[in-house]
Amino acid sequence: MINIGILGCGRIGQVHARAIAGLPNARLVAVADAFPDAAIALSEATGADIRNSAAIIAAPDIDAIIIGTPTDTHYDLIHRAAAAGKAIFCEKPVDLSADRIRDCIRAIDASGVPFFTAFNRRFDPNFAQIKARITAGEIGDVEIITILSRDPAPPPISYIAGSGGIFRDMMIHDFDMARFLLAEEPVQVFAVGSALVDPAIAAAGDVDTAAVTLTTASGKICQISNSRRAAYGYDQRLEVHGSKGMLRAENRLENAVEVATEAGFQRAPAMHFFLERYAEAYAAEMVHFVAALEAGTAPAPGITDGLQAQLLADAAAESLATGVPVLL
Amino acid sequence: MINIGILGCGRIGQVHARAIAGLPNARLVAVADAFPDAAIALSEATGADIRNSAAIIAAPDIDAIIIGTPTDTHYDLIHRAAAAGKAIFCEKPVDLSADRIRDCIRAIDASGVPFFTAFNRRFDPNFAQIKARITAGEIGDVEIITILSRDPAPPPISYIAGSGGIFRDMMIHDFDMARFLLAEEPVQVFAVGSALVDPAIAAAGDVDTAAVTLTTASGKICQISNSRRAAYGYDQRLEVHGSKGMLRAENRLENAVEVATEAGFQRAPAMHFFLERYAEAYAAEMVHFVAALEAGTAPAPGITDGLQAQLLADAAAESLATGVPVLL
Amino acid sequence: MINIGILGCGRIGQVHARAIAGLPNARLVAVADAFPDAAIALSEATGADIRNSAAIIAAPDIDAIIIGTPTDTHYDLIHRAAAAGKAIFCEKPVDLSADRIRDCIRAIDASGVPFFTAFNRRFDPNFAQIKARITAGEIGDVEIITILSRDPAPPPISYIAGSGGIFRDMMIHDFDMARFLLAEEPVQVFAVGSALVDPAIAAAGDVDTAAVTLTTASGKICQISNSRRAAYGYDQRLEVHGSKGMLRAENRLENAVEVATEAGFQRAPAMHFFLERYAEAYAAEMVHFVAALEAGTAPAPGITDGLQAQLLADAAAESLATGVPVLL
Amino acid sequence: MINIGILGCGRIGQVHARAIAGLPNARLVAVADAFPDAAIALSEATGADIRNSAAIIAAPDIDAIIIGTPTDTHYDLIHRAAAAGKAIFCEKPVDLSADRIRDCIRAIDASGVPFFTAFNRRFDPNFAQIKARITAGEIGDVEIITILSRDPAPPPISYIAGSGGIFRDMMIHDFDMARFLLAEEPVQVFAVGSALVDPAIAAAGDVDTAAVTLTTASGKICQISNSRRAAYGYDQRLEVHGSKGMLRAENRLENAVEVATEAGFQRAPAMHFFLERYAEAYAAEMVHFVAALEAGTAPAPGITDGLQAQLLADAAAESLATGVPVLL
Repeated sequence: MINIGILGCGRIGQVHARAIAGLPNARLVAVADAFPDAAIALSEATGADIRNSAAIIAAPDIDAIIIGTPTDTHYDLIHRAAAAGKAIFCEKPVDLSADRIRDCIRAIDASGVPFFTAFNRRFDPNFAQIKARITAGEIGDVEIITILSRDPAPPPISYIAGSGGIFRDMMIHDFDMARFLLAEEPVQVFAVGSALVDPAIAAAGDVDTAAVTLTTASGKICQISNSRRAAYGYDQRLEVHGSKGMLRAENRLENAVEVATEAGFQRAPAMHFFLERYAEAYAAEMVHFVAALEAGTAPAPGITDGLQAQLLADAAAESLATGVPVLL
Repeated sequence: MINIGILGCGRIGQVHARAIAGLPNARLVAVADAFPDAAIALSEATGADIRNSAAIIAAPDIDAIIIGTPTDTHYDLIHRAAAAGKAIFCEKPVDLSADRIRDCIRAIDASGVPFFTAFNRRFDPNFAQIKARITAGEIGDVEIITILSRDPAPPPISYIAGSGGIFRDMMIHDFDMARFLLAEEPVQVFAVGSALVDPAIAAAGDVDTAAVTLTTASGKICQISNSRRAAYGYDQRLEVHGSKGMLRAENRLENAVEVATEAGFQRAPAMHFFLERYAEAYAAEMVHFVAALEAGTAPAPGITDGLQAQLLADAAAESLATGVPVLL
Repeated sequence: MINIGILGCGRIGQVHARAIAGLPNARLVAVADAFPDAAIALSEATGADIRNSAAIIAAPDIDAIIIGTPTDTHYDLIHRAAAAGKAIFCEKPVDLSADRIRDCIRAIDASGVPFFTAFNRRFDPNFAQIKARITAGEIGDVEIITILSRDPAPPPISYIAGSGGIFRDMMIHDFDMARFLLAEEPVQVFAVGSALVDPAIAAAGDVDTAAVTLTTASGKICQISNSRRAAYGYDQRLEVHGSKGMLRAENRLENAVEVATEAGFQRAPAMHFFLERYAEAYAAEMVHFVAALEAGTAPAPGITDGLQAQLLADAAAESLATGVPVLL
Repeated sequence: MINIGILGCGRIGQVHARAIAGLPNARLVAVADAFPDAAIALSEATGADIRNSAAIIAAPDIDAIIIGTPTDTHYDLIHRAAAAGKAIFCEKPVDLSADRIRDCIRAIDASGVPFFTAFNRRFDPNFAQIKARITAGEIGDVEIITILSRDPAPPPISYIAGSGGIFRDMMIHDFDMARFLLAEEPVQVFAVGSALVDPAIAAAGDVDTAAVTLTTASGKICQISNSRRAAYGYDQRLEVHGSKGMLRAENRLENAVEVATEAGFQRAPAMHFFLERYAEAYAAEMVHFVAALEAGTAPAPGITDGLQAQLLADAAAESLATGVPVLL
């Protein structure tokens, strides 16, 4: 039985609390949030204690900490939880600065605590299966990966301003997915981008439409494109072209009903909400985290994966700014 | 808060227990099973008391009874629960005899307790949406319904023998679905059937491959076909042809990955296990049952729907035996 | 080189003329039509002579006759062409009367001329491939066949009146397809039908919505449904369920473009026009007919197939009229 | 009636000859080929005269010349045909050198003859429809275009050596398609590439796996990827993401049959052969060319489109060689 404390009772903290409730081998002991109302609501829904962050990190009855607080608080909480010997489940991004992530790695290494970077998409049943089937050799050697991600609509401009930009905020998921599927580190990043959706995004110093090309030392290629807007829902597709075939995952639609009328054959839009779209992934990543702790194995992706994805995002931002590819 | 007792702790009782656990407005108070081990296991998983059926039916702290015991026990339990004033959630079929179901209806009517017949497929999100879109007029008037159901593999011959035959055991779901979507009672039933899957099924007096045609007074037509075996999983499809278009629901596959190789483009088989295939439907029917009790409205489908589906199954069995259509 | 004369220069005669033009081993020598304008137009388009029917049938420079005239003229033309020793390619139905088809069979047998009944759908690339893959054992033994045919819109009432009814005019194609795929003669036919599309069709003594169940001696089952109207185009689907799997052919759509908008993912309607939908089938059946004549083998389907489909249509009409299954 | 001469009786010349045969307003007068057997075969198949190139270009009874000879002969033939006042239908690429294409443009401009660059894919019914629906505003402003092209297998190494490289030989089609759909000239090209399929391709100085990013002045982005090998056929897909939705065209498969077995649901591979895959496009481009000549309008794409695609290919090759984006 793994005893868990949640720091941050917002949307994502609630998702993790539900995932823990569904596990026979984990127990949510306590929750904390800077906003008392959020902590009270989650405590009432789960029966967990309300404590402050320091108390949760220090608590002898807690084995693992879930960090679901704003990104700029991760650094401090990671250091304190590592010092307290707690296993850590940290929402992505670990930090917006690669140097600060390196600091965190030093702290984690020094303490030896398990660390899980919550790149939930690796646990999506379809993407996980594609990874497994690549590993099993079903399509031979990986040659070209194509990842298309589009959000239904851009976040508020206020969010954009503090997000670190589209590469660190949105495409970071795709960078991790690329590394996961390539099974080889990219050595070059080239990025282009535009603000086509909303001029306010340009005014905030960001782009809303972006495309990146990654290449590896052995010559594998990955193309990623992102848009902050898709009329038809939350568009999440990828395909992997290999020497013996191709694997791909289509969108998850709101339902499986098709209607045929004079206009043709119509299926539902893609699921709009990321928490619904990746519901199975959120549950599966918690199963993995708890099982790894119980087995004494390292959860994956770990903090190094968090760093590597961040380095790709940094390189993409630099490439966009300079107009030339960035070598890693 | 609706307090519930479960009679029958087998596979389906466990499904309902999980559904109750997910509801904020329902509580599983007690469970009973003729096999103590089954009751103990479900009690341990849920925290519910173990009591015997009589105690659960009599309990003042229980509002509703879920009957998930073998079909031949339903009659007695329904009468006793009705007499005790308990709301009833009864697995299908209510009984294999229409006359005995009529007896139950009298008992339910006399007591006035709410009664829900668990035709779970009405609560499948896709089928429910098709119903809603028909009702909204999206395809005009319903003209032809086509329902294809195939099980992955036949049940044990020992089960077949006591099942009441393919029409009462398997096609009963399709009869209910036909009534649900036609929104008009069939007035004629014609059935054909063969034992093509396993000669032992013929030896047991049943068929494993069957097709039925239903017609209504206004001329609507429904064709249903069943097979006890499908190499590619649990095949559950239906479509509704109307004056302005057609609505259909395709199979639910094990995953959404497609692989392209020399052999072509391949997607996963259909989900094999009915509990997994209809997982959302099992959860949704419990939501509906509990909500109806809280609101004081009648849950649907009710016991009359259980009777009507049974009458269609009886008519199909008679048509198969006599070789001619049966008028209702 | 096979020299061909076409009797009947309407829509279907023109289709066959184009098919012949595409063949290196066939030549269209002459055309005839009761309406001179039709013959003139086809002659100008193809360079073929204009002659009258009698002259074409008698012509020593013609090997084969294509009969594309109205159904009630087939009987006489078949007898005359058989007597003249000409190979015959006859549009379906051979005749609306089974007895008259039997007369034709006697004439064909007496003369020994090759005879092809133009059930073009057997030559649709997808349906032909399903047949080939069944024969190759890909899905084991055939158990259930489901055929859905819907026309985009009903023909004029004047046409309905002389059509012989939906079973002889429209479902005749499905009866032939059922025989083709079952590879076993049906022994029982049960039909239901309604006039849901247009009351004028009922007034003309016909139905526009019909469903038939065929069964064979070995217990195979085939369900067919027809509607004279489909908002979404010319709907032509079939599937074959076997002991080891299932083969199916989906509709041919107007194009392969998909658009995703707020309303969802939409593909084009089904092709509306039967000449376009079955364009490849019309070309392929002519390839087959000419190749058979060159090789000295019997073209298939032959006149017996024309009779058998007609007997199924007659039986369906009788079943609809009497309300009970008809044994063959 | 447009009278046409074909220069080059190889595979593509034969395709054009068949297209002409299907047109009421065009006539194939003469054919020429450096290999007499090729000319003889095409003459026998079509009834056209055999003449040499000079005679065809000079012939007063010929209005238009189709140039289907090897690429290095195009330059000379274009100049001679232009000087002779003949309309020109020229296979792509016009030439492997942009400067030499500019020479041709001068010759064409001086003579005023109509010139058609045979980028056949613009005439594929699905791609043409996507263009039309973009133009009609169906998906709002174009933002991201994704083009995936994979050949079934690489050409012989001997062909690679003289092909001008993957960008000029294979991706040239995608560059034209990008320009067609963007409706705005790219201003920057970035390319990456590897030889993953066959080391002999690297030895020949080329790559077999390549990805390009195009950007326009207004910020539109196009990602293209190519592979010389796809186990599952000739893979030709594209999608256009716009402000109001997304349009895409899936692959054309060998047939529309689906089989369901224990392994899942399987459809056919993509059509393998480009002449078959683009059969409709080859026919449609000839319809367009002849109709434009008859109407006295300029056929499109014209020679400038041939130049622009070549400039993009040149830029891609330069980008691959230098490792940095190339500005246009």
